[in-house]
Amino acid sequence: MSSDKQLADKAERHKARQQKVKEAVDAKIAKAQTEKGVLLVMTGNGKGKTTAGFGNITRAVGHGKKAAVVQFIKGNWPCGERAVLEQVGVEFHVMATGFTWETQDREKDTLAALSAWEAAETLLSDDTIDIVLLDELTYMVSYHYLDLDRVLTALKNRPPMQHVIITGRACHRAILELADTVSEVQPIKHAFEDGVKAQLGFDY
Amino acid sequence: MSSDKQLADKAERHKARQQKVKEAVDAKIAKAQTEKGVLLVMTGNGKGKTTAGFGNITRAVGHGKKAAVVQFIKGNWPCGERAVLEQVGVEFHVMATGFTWETQDREKDTLAALSAWEAAETLLSDDTIDIVLLDELTYMVSYHYLDLDRVLTALKNRPPMQHVIITGRACHRAILELADTVSEVQPIKHAFEDGVKAQLGFDY
Repeated sequence: MSSDKQLADKAERHKARQQKVKEAVDAKIAKAQTEKGVLLVMTGNGKGKTTAGFGNITRAVGHGKKAAVVQFIKGNWPCGERAVLEQVGVEFHVMATGFTWETQDREKDTLAALSAWEAAETLLSDDTIDIVLLDELTYMVSYHYLDLDRVLTALKNRPPMQHVIITGRACHRAILELADTVSEVQPIKHAFEDGVKAQLGFDY
Repeated sequence: MSSDKQLADKAERHKARQQKVKEAVDAKIAKAQTEKGVLLVMTGNGKGKTTAGFGNITRAVGHGKKAAVVQFIKGNWPCGERAVLEQVGVEFHVMATGFTWETQDREKDTLAALSAWEAAETLLSDDTIDIVLLDELTYMVSYHYLDLDRVLTALKNRPPMQHVIITGRACHRAILELADTVSEVQPIKHAFEDGVKAQLGFDY
């Protein structure tokens, strides 16, 4: 068999395989017709949860959607995402304290979490907001700074077309159950474990 | 024991626990002192790989870093991330064809992949670029559109402080081995499986 013939056969087999993939994908797409606000949770211990949230906000804004961000547990460093996204109209609310192990003051942290959550509730009842990122919200629930039922109620009662993204490790089971899409980001390896420090503009 | 006393004890225990967490975190941070360009791979079958890549680009640009994006396998829809990020100076190269099961033409796809890869090689040899996103690159290797060794060589020889992010399912083992940080995004559940269609500004 000539090499040309082999190449042509390979191209044909590729085409047939891809045709099958296309048919399977098309069939799935045809079945998925519901449009609704999706509750997405990005959890797990790997790198990429917060950046996925902000990437989704960047995408939404690029399509003319109205987006808002509430950052729970935020360090005192400047936020690169905020610098870009506020320029294009994204509304930001940032919790007043930093990482909770830096503050070590339960009462102060609880008040700060509540205040940030009130901003979140306002967004979750505003049907002009297309997408809301609740960055690092999971910790507020696991540290009992926020009442789980209050969080669930606001999520359930939000405008039906509003997308919400929640990020953070160890998301409470009740929020996972309510979510439409859950991704668990697993750390296969991390440069930090190999002695590489967190670098501005990449890790934060 | 009075309720006030209980609350005070709870706050003290919280403070002690958080102090321990802080010490452990501080010790880890003290050990991690290397600064280098990190090769990050976001792989797995869950939602959030591409958005994590774009979120990282948004963050970098917000800190004044110079960023570039090469999109392999890109559909023919408008790209929201591009609309925002080109405004703030991010350089984009987009592969000419769409999803490969839409084109079903191996030769055409290979040429398009090669052309996009040449743009990537230029970026990977330019030390004025702080961070490069190679979105959906993994498929180019698994479909044998690109030569693995050529990809590995360019990644290894890039400027030492340049960060690179590779996204896509089923990343080749040799790229995972070369990477500093690997996150696997696992789909715990996905709205699409529940009949929810891919929505503009959220899923694409």
